[in-house]
Amino acid sequence: MIRIIVSLFLMTAWAALGLSQQQEIQSVLDMQVKAWNDGNMERYMDGYWKSDSLLFTSGGNIQRGWQATLEKYKKGYSTKAKMGTLNFSQLGINLLSQESAWVFGHWELEREKDHPRGVFTLIFRKFSDGWKIVHDHTSVEPLQKTKTKK
Amino acid sequence: MIRIIVSLFLMTAWAALGLSQQQEIQSVLDMQVKAWNDGNMERYMDGYWKSDSLLFTSGGNIQRGWQATLEKYKKGYSTKAKMGTLNFSQLGINLLSQESAWVFGHWELEREKDHPRGVFTLIFRKFSDGWKIVHDHTSVEPLQKTKTKK
Repeated sequence: MIRIIVSLFLMTAWAALGLSQQQEIQSVLDMQVKAWNDGNMERYMDGYWKSDSLLFTSGGNIQRGWQATLEKYKKGYSTKAKMGTLNFSQLGINLLSQESAWVFGHWELEREKDHPRGVFTLIFRKFSDGWKIVHDHTSVEPLQKTKTKK
Repeated sequence: MIRIIVSLFLMTAWAALGLSQQQEIQSVLDMQVKAWNDGNMERYMDGYWKSDSLLFTSGGNIQRGWQATLEKYKKGYSTKAKMGTLNFSQLGINLLSQESAWVFGHWELEREKDHPRGVFTLIFRKFSDGWKIVHDHTSVEPLQKTKTKK
């Protein structure tokens, strides 16, 4: 009986810990969306690992390093109109260990002239200052693509 | 002195363990390349987690499940000419724990009529039957893209 109670306690504690880690990662993503929509690129970039080893790829381009990624973003999204309104959806946060996780999700930008969207895969690692994205693989949905039901 | 020796021993053991895990992952990728180039799609798919939760995305399409991914591959690469010769390069294998890792690399297909290429991010997890890809995010380099030096 004691063993069952202890097992249940451990399972609950483990589940609660997992939920908490996922909530922490969710809050990093929420912060990023808010920062982007406030036009605060530096704050948005705070979700990324501040290291030369950060690996970012989007639409066939590869950036290595936090600073290079920030500069690329600043160049590509130099005005609030270019930044548009960011939204993430259908997020799946998958813990790999107590200090690592991967996330898959959909992104879209609402802008006056267009509406780019696609999917992303993120690798998160937990550092002393919290969960940070160490790798971002973003894909842009081709504009010419015909929508078909599978 | 004893502490230094023990520390050195542990560091070496840890490094050796890490290397071995990376070698195991490398061998899965080597197997996949060989299977593809042998025209053996089923064997190629053996590198993927045989689960309905396998998540595969390439060029804006999303497949969920091992079976759906196999069928998509079989449809898209129905002949040896369409499969071409696969090559992986610049592989970075990054352990996240003793049972999880992420891999970033470049891929290319040599075919008679074209030469598609791009990058991929893989999430590997270690199961009782070895390391398997649980998520694959593949990007195709746009054909119209102009090559520029950064």
